[in-house]
Amino acid sequence: MIYLDNAASTQISGDVLDSMLPYLREQFGNPSSIHRYGRLAQKAISKARKQVAELINADPSEILFTSGGTESNNTSLYGIVKKNPGSRIITSLIEHDAILEPCKNLEKEGFDVVYLPVNNLGMVDPPSLEKALNENTSLVSIMFGNNEVGTIEPISELAKICKEKQIPFHTDAVQAIGKISIDVKELGLDLLSMSSHKINGPKGIGALYVKKGISIDPIIFGGGQEKGLRSGTENVANIVGFGKACELARKNLVTNISKMKELRDYLSKKILKEIPCVTLNGHPEKRLPNNVHLTFLGVNGEDLLIKLDENGIAASTGSACSVQIQKASHVLQAMGFSHEQITGSLRLTVGISNTMEEMDETVKILKHVVEELRAVSPFKEKYSF
Amino acid sequence: MIYLDNAASTQISGDVLDSMLPYLREQFGNPSSIHRYGRLAQKAISKARKQVAELINADPSEILFTSGGTESNNTSLYGIVKKNPGSRIITSLIEHDAILEPCKNLEKEGFDVVYLPVNNLGMVDPPSLEKALNENTSLVSIMFGNNEVGTIEPISELAKICKEKQIPFHTDAVQAIGKISIDVKELGLDLLSMSSHKINGPKGIGALYVKKGISIDPIIFGGGQEKGLRSGTENVANIVGFGKACELARKNLVTNISKMKELRDYLSKKILKEIPCVTLNGHPEKRLPNNVHLTFLGVNGEDLLIKLDENGIAASTGSACSVQIQKASHVLQAMGFSHEQITGSLRLTVGISNTMEEMDETVKILKHVVEELRAVSPFKEKYSF
Repeated sequence: MIYLDNAASTQISGDVLDSMLPYLREQFGNPSSIHRYGRLAQKAISKARKQVAELINADPSEILFTSGGTESNNTSLYGIVKKNPGSRIITSLIEHDAILEPCKNLEKEGFDVVYLPVNNLGMVDPPSLEKALNENTSLVSIMFGNNEVGTIEPISELAKICKEKQIPFHTDAVQAIGKISIDVKELGLDLLSMSSHKINGPKGIGALYVKKGISIDPIIFGGGQEKGLRSGTENVANIVGFGKACELARKNLVTNISKMKELRDYLSKKILKEIPCVTLNGHPEKRLPNNVHLTFLGVNGEDLLIKLDENGIAASTGSACSVQIQKASHVLQAMGFSHEQITGSLRLTVGISNTMEEMDETVKILKHVVEELRAVSPFKEKYSF
Repeated sequence: MIYLDNAASTQISGDVLDSMLPYLREQFGNPSSIHRYGRLAQKAISKARKQVAELINADPSEILFTSGGTESNNTSLYGIVKKNPGSRIITSLIEHDAILEPCKNLEKEGFDVVYLPVNNLGMVDPPSLEKALNENTSLVSIMFGNNEVGTIEPISELAKICKEKQIPFHTDAVQAIGKISIDVKELGLDLLSMSSHKINGPKGIGALYVKKGISIDPIIFGGGQEKGLRSGTENVANIVGFGKACELARKNLVTNISKMKELRDYLSKKILKEIPCVTLNGHPEKRLPNNVHLTFLGVNGEDLLIKLDENGIAASTGSACSVQIQKASHVLQAMGFSHEQITGSLRLTVGISNTMEEMDETVKILKHVVEELRAVSPFKEKYSF
């Protein structure tokens, strides 16, 4: 199989798994235990917290471990706004469901949620944030890089606007960490969500960066782990693996970005050159280095996906982080795409293990599969395939 | 080291780790992906759900995977009561912090929480539940087996009382699963919390049994995983490991219980015989097969713990699932223990890997350490050690 769904999940790197194994074998202590087993587990968590912090230039004390990106996003939203019932929350129309769904729920609880629009490249316009801010605003949450079309948002500008008004700014950086150099201090961020399994770490673990001085309430209560902000026995092995994945992502950031960009650009250009009636979606330059998002006119993306799978290519129509229900992409809708454009979309996301040969093979198969599907397309005549 | 802190966490069994490894290596798909990688991950989750369900005689559709026992407890409480603001919640004084802390928070939100007392053996009296129930009660939550003193609560009777009044009954069975035969249908349970790492499975994964027909609200929102009740990319490897741990716990239940009981009784009797001024706490018969909870008069449990650790024995003063803060056990307080009795307490919890030789060695070391500590005890004369 050629795996081109790295935005959905990535393979755990060998070094990451090796770092985890002792904590899946002999080092099984509960970090809250006072004895040697407990202390070793606690020490391992401290090391990982430092590794995670370093990737985004945070202080280890600003890193809160969670069960993943979704929990980080939920904690950020509920943790900040709960103490201001009825306040305004500003987000965008193209956020991941892990932001949009809690926002919908907060609306039901009486919060005033404003969803900023995006342009046809999937970009939020900073002045629109300025206009939406009011005195009653408790939080702004705009994603760093979009999971479907790969567009990178103007985070620095958006954070600056919030800073001036002293309103906490959160960014869902699940797709961006390890793919963009992120310095929370330089960017002026207050909260940032991370996920391990998107950067060759294990699933079921993530983190929330909470800037010193920003106070949040927990959403899960109990034994008081993570300074009382996230109770529950720590997932030691996964925390260790996530730490290692962050360390590797930091050390190899430049190489990884350049490798992914090379693969991405080669794949993208070759498809656009060899297959007719295809458009690249999202921002042409300000985009995640691993993301190719295309619309194949006259083709159903689902059919394309299934055919590709049959031919040994793992791809996605867009977001893979929501259950297998067929709904039209809210991201493409917000970008003003027609139903036909949305239907014909395909997301190919490269990873650090992909090769140029795989890119060639992918284009070959894709070309063939698209031809096959277009031969029976109801739009055959419209586009004279 | 002799590990006698199995109530805090257990070692992952070899078979469990073996079952996880493919999902930490080549089978890294996101279960929400439509392609082969995704389908294989989804299939693995289905298998695990069945294995977990079988341990407690539930239907797989009644199993909701969470990040652990604490999240299961929080989900059960918030998930049930949120739709009835201000309603009564009945629990006990000896619950784990993963119940008590969310309850405290619910009190702040205007809920009426009633904490049932226990007798000096740590047992809830069913008539006290009957008295506390009123028309405004939305949930009753009483733990199955206590994590500190090991007392098993009269769950069947308590559940029956709730059933008659049609009030949902939840039990935190984190310490009980794999140690008692639990049949949710026979017991008439509506909700039950489970944790993987207490039964030789990995940390960071647990489940909540929610009886068909019982409706709960999620506490984490997003991509709609777990039928919308727990969003976030599934922790596939840990789910698979938890499933395997449940399968093994079910298959070996009788053997495991008998082995743990033998170790426990041998250890307990030998300590009581060879060391003076020691009492066994909790119910003498209705207790978890792995739990020995003792009070060594005139000794500080913390000192004992540290000395034991230095001598190669990992033990606990009580609950290890809360952070390393020294607070007097709320369980022993509820059982009417004096400050001195609480201070002198020690929990030894055996596991399936412990041996009789380790029990002998433990008593030998314990005897020596207790003598040492009592030689300098301020209570030396009071008890004429």
